[in-house]
Amino acid sequence: MPDLVLDYANCLSDRIGDEGLDPAHLEASLSAVAEHGEELDAMRAAGETAYRDLPFDPARSAHTKAIRRLVDDCAGTYDTLIVLGIGGSALGNIALQNALNPVTYNLLPDGIRPGPRLFVVDNVDPMLLGDILDFAETVDPGLSRTLVNVISKSGETAETAAQFITMRDVLINSLGDNAHRNIIAITDPSRGTMRSIVDAEGYRNLPVPDGVGGRFSVLSPVGLFSAAMCGIDIEALLDGAASMDAPCSRRDMTSNPAAMLAFLLIEFTKRGKPNHVLMPYCNALYSLADWYRQIWAESLGKQVDRQGNEVFAGATPIKALGTTDQHSQVQLYREGPNDKVIGFVDVRKLPRDLTIPTGLDVENLKYLQGVSFTTLLAAEKRATEYALVESKRPNFTITFPTLDAYYVGQFIALWEIATSYAGLMLNINAYDQPAVELGKQATFGLMGRPGYEEFNTKVADTLGPSDRVIPRNG
Amino acid sequence: MPDLVLDYANCLSDRIGDEGLDPAHLEASLSAVAEHGEELDAMRAAGETAYRDLPFDPARSAHTKAIRRLVDDCAGTYDTLIVLGIGGSALGNIALQNALNPVTYNLLPDGIRPGPRLFVVDNVDPMLLGDILDFAETVDPGLSRTLVNVISKSGETAETAAQFITMRDVLINSLGDNAHRNIIAITDPSRGTMRSIVDAEGYRNLPVPDGVGGRFSVLSPVGLFSAAMCGIDIEALLDGAASMDAPCSRRDMTSNPAAMLAFLLIEFTKRGKPNHVLMPYCNALYSLADWYRQIWAESLGKQVDRQGNEVFAGATPIKALGTTDQHSQVQLYREGPNDKVIGFVDVRKLPRDLTIPTGLDVENLKYLQGVSFTTLLAAEKRATEYALVESKRPNFTITFPTLDAYYVGQFIALWEIATSYAGLMLNINAYDQPAVELGKQATFGLMGRPGYEEFNTKVADTLGPSDRVIPRNG
Repeated sequence: MPDLVLDYANCLSDRIGDEGLDPAHLEASLSAVAEHGEELDAMRAAGETAYRDLPFDPARSAHTKAIRRLVDDCAGTYDTLIVLGIGGSALGNIALQNALNPVTYNLLPDGIRPGPRLFVVDNVDPMLLGDILDFAETVDPGLSRTLVNVISKSGETAETAAQFITMRDVLINSLGDNAHRNIIAITDPSRGTMRSIVDAEGYRNLPVPDGVGGRFSVLSPVGLFSAAMCGIDIEALLDGAASMDAPCSRRDMTSNPAAMLAFLLIEFTKRGKPNHVLMPYCNALYSLADWYRQIWAESLGKQVDRQGNEVFAGATPIKALGTTDQHSQVQLYREGPNDKVIGFVDVRKLPRDLTIPTGLDVENLKYLQGVSFTTLLAAEKRATEYALVESKRPNFTITFPTLDAYYVGQFIALWEIATSYAGLMLNINAYDQPAVELGKQATFGLMGRPGYEEFNTKVADTLGPSDRVIPRNG
Repeated sequence: MPDLVLDYANCLSDRIGDEGLDPAHLEASLSAVAEHGEELDAMRAAGETAYRDLPFDPARSAHTKAIRRLVDDCAGTYDTLIVLGIGGSALGNIALQNALNPVTYNLLPDGIRPGPRLFVVDNVDPMLLGDILDFAETVDPGLSRTLVNVISKSGETAETAAQFITMRDVLINSLGDNAHRNIIAITDPSRGTMRSIVDAEGYRNLPVPDGVGGRFSVLSPVGLFSAAMCGIDIEALLDGAASMDAPCSRRDMTSNPAAMLAFLLIEFTKRGKPNHVLMPYCNALYSLADWYRQIWAESLGKQVDRQGNEVFAGATPIKALGTTDQHSQVQLYREGPNDKVIGFVDVRKLPRDLTIPTGLDVENLKYLQGVSFTTLLAAEKRATEYALVESKRPNFTITFPTLDAYYVGQFIALWEIATSYAGLMLNINAYDQPAVELGKQATFGLMGRPGYEEFNTKVADTLGPSDRVIPRNG
């Protein structure tokens, strides 16, 4: 089976002049990158990158068997699946669904749809949850055919906890003593607040594996259960991810797509191009750009390096969509500050095509008639690539041979491992998120949670009343 | 009626130290901004900012009457509305729909839904159009209750033309001689390729007004027709936009929200913070961030200034969503490079709230119980604001008194006029998009359109075959 292809010719100085990387510099960096490979292997052996083991046994079989058992158990029982989670407990789920099921999935009638309708509620916006709840109650007044899947390692994430407490209550009001049967939890297998609730209430459950951080967890039960419920081939996803392991372990960067991707992006970051656009030419892949936004931003955005020196490292991931954003962002990408690297994603052969019919007798539009949509899409992408090169803007392309679960698995593994390389290249810890803590504590303070009172005062002291307001009486 | 409120206290040095703007500098800039106001007035008088007249008569009455007539004409006739457009002919339509109708709108049964299902097809991805077409044909096999709304000023935009030729053919195959009745065009009222087609085929149609560029056209028939079809109060939208005109015309920047917004963002751009995040704490407002991405990127991203000097001006608009992106981007926003300004958007009183119920006997989660979702959402936003200020990251907040069409209209006018100010502050032409041309010509060349053959060669010469590929045989 062919692999994803990374073409980075448009990053080099022979294409884009001084704005590009000198091929000699690339040569000269080979040994350093090989050393990062050694270090990654050592980290893996020490269990510090447990995400890499997810596509392999024993983790893989344990997870897929448990998931399969639950999915079989649920077969034919539910028309609506509501996932409660946020960040790494939602972005992967959304990305898999949008990549591998039609955009009209939720609209398809029962029976045609390969699984329950899927809603991923990744916010505490009451209109979002309220509208979804209204809809669920309209199509399923007793909620007996509505399944809630709460995903939280600790159970303490405020947003997920708030959604969970609300949905649990709604189910109890509808289903009484049977409510627990309509909740499936994905949480820590042995400890934490959600674990206690699961044990006390008797929910069916799946594990968030040890040592796998939220943003690296999509190929665990966190991302795979909802995918499997909606008919996605999770074995193919894992096969694809597994197949990227050996290429991304090669010591020679010129044959290791993860090392090359990381090297290019971190080199450009150091040279004043810290804005990293991911721009699929395929609507289905657009949500994968949101998943990428998290893994790239949260892993690499770090104030201190591994020795504790202040570095304010990081790169800003930006999502864009081709051709759509040719009519929105490309003007800026070509003529604005040269501070970006554009990462195209395209698909060589989409599972479906349409031909633009002939028969409209308008001279100016004859050139489109009888041509396929994929031909036009490919021409638009190539034209944009050309226009960026003309403006000396670095860009690369990741090509999917086709759009299926196997290649989505490859894409996920590619970026996960690239993130690990990038962390070493920046000399930062890519696996923590210390800056998120202060906001959580301040939220607790503002919400009156015992033990966090000091933050209430701190927030008031820092933000105070503002007189910098328009209108002033607003 | 209260207005949108802009609070910019967290942009100033008394809050965030040297990373912020000195209030004295703000004082010192008042006269320059007042001069930009004079210039804007002169431009308006010369008809160079025709978008500003859209909420006022005679344009307003002419448009709303024509729209109302068509909407009445369509009442009860269509269950599905498919909009064909891209860029400024799609982003505003999507933003209005998502802001003002429930996230489940398309799922609601006929009769409960206040208008037809809405699909905005803003790409030439065959899976996107194919899936939507399949769905339309499933629920409406003869397509007699499916309305296509094609939006293109010239009719020559390749993506929209391709979709249109395809959908026109599908309708002819289903409806024969009546197909033209199921197409409504929004196009140039007097010239162009689409105008000729409209006249030849007898479509009902609405005008793209003269002098209003695509990204400034949402409050014209371009954005308003699909909104009105879906039950959105377009008079309230226009009332809101009209109400921002006087405040945004004030000479005193400290009482002019558009001038202040532009001044802050352009000052920060000049000081190494050219990344401008718009982060609504409200799912419904998230698509407005896509609309903002276009107007900010395409208007300000310019290689040359008004005197023709190379400046590579511009700022990179970035969309984010609270609270969701607290678990994805805020780590980077706090600890990464200090190159961003974060623009929060919140809603004082959402039209709907939910209360987190009591009754889950878990000590750690007691603090959430009995509290409303909007209280939690507000606490999360304030905590994030606090955390950013602690990290000396500039941020501001635009507050909607509530979420309705009036304030969405205010928000749109605010950013449109801010864009005009920002263009003057950067001394660039904010109303053209010269860099988009090359990609269009190259697409024509690659598609074999007569007259563009040279671009086929140019693309091949520039991009050539690549040997920078992993895997090499890929």
